[in-house]
Amino acid sequence: MEIKIIPIGYVKNDIKHTTFQQNMDVSQRKRQSQLKYKQIKQTISELIIDPSYEDMLDGVENFSHIVVIYWPHLLTDEQRKLRKVHPMGRKDLPIQGIFATRSPARPNSILISTVELLKRQNNLLQVKGLEALDGSPILDIKTYIQISDQVTNPVFPEWVHQIRRELQNETNH
Amino acid sequence: MEIKIIPIGYVKNDIKHTTFQQNMDVSQRKRQSQLKYKQIKQTISELIIDPSYEDMLDGVENFSHIVVIYWPHLLTDEQRKLRKVHPMGRKDLPIQGIFATRSPARPNSILISTVELLKRQNNLLQVKGLEALDGSPILDIKTYIQISDQVTNPVFPEWVHQIRRELQNETNH
Repeated sequence: MEIKIIPIGYVKNDIKHTTFQQNMDVSQRKRQSQLKYKQIKQTISELIIDPSYEDMLDGVENFSHIVVIYWPHLLTDEQRKLRKVHPMGRKDLPIQGIFATRSPARPNSILISTVELLKRQNNLLQVKGLEALDGSPILDIKTYIQISDQVTNPVFPEWVHQIRRELQNETNH
Repeated sequence: MEIKIIPIGYVKNDIKHTTFQQNMDVSQRKRQSQLKYKQIKQTISELIIDPSYEDMLDGVENFSHIVVIYWPHLLTDEQRKLRKVHPMGRKDLPIQGIFATRSPARPNSILISTVELLKRQNNLLQVKGLEALDGSPILDIKTYIQISDQVTNPVFPEWVHQIRRELQNETNH
């Protein structure tokens, strides 16, 4: 079975290339992740939706947050075949199967990102905090709805807590 | 541009068909939604992942919740062309563009559902509360991570609050 997807639009922003580099040691990688996280939180992106779909956005402007489903178009076929990774390329964190992570490299790299919706103007949505490269195809837009998306008391392994502490400490400075 | 997706597995559960019926009045529709919500919250599903991907699930068992990305395979092409809907088929709620809703009928019906992970056994995941029909193809599995998926103080239009109140009152009985 094969499913065919035609994108509904694309992302426009200033993130022109991924900053991910091989062969960094743990402290360099940690610092790089902190800088990238900080940059992305502040990035304003435009979601340019095909004008033929404009009326299908009606009502989205009444929500503070949307879920953007997009495709990381610059990933290579080689990257999509990765089976296990150290989270965020960090050799000090335990290696995980791809499905236990949010790595963009995965068999079907359908990425989801929940972001703040700043404004809608006709077929354009302006959002803050989207981690997508400029030109990424958009597959779907959904509104963020508590009853569907919110989890009470989720449980995570320690490496997830560690990454959160590191990233959020940095951005609180 | 066309993206080709090959499913990584499929859903097995007791939800054999959608209960959605045309031509119900508001109170019938409301009652039907409440019953369906209650039923789905209790439904145990098995996610049967292709055995060739088994090692890519390693580590997922340390999370309490996962995000399942799946395809509603029984939707017709006609349904995918819907442009606006009354949320949950409720004529008393204001009509919305498809992208302002979580309706499965949309140009690319890539559905996402955050569910409780009960257990993992090799290439099988047992989850609770998945709103997917038996046999739905699974496109991706991600772990639920607060820093990516959690929103503080989201804002919604009144119809979203109304649906939440109705559904959650019912299930508290």
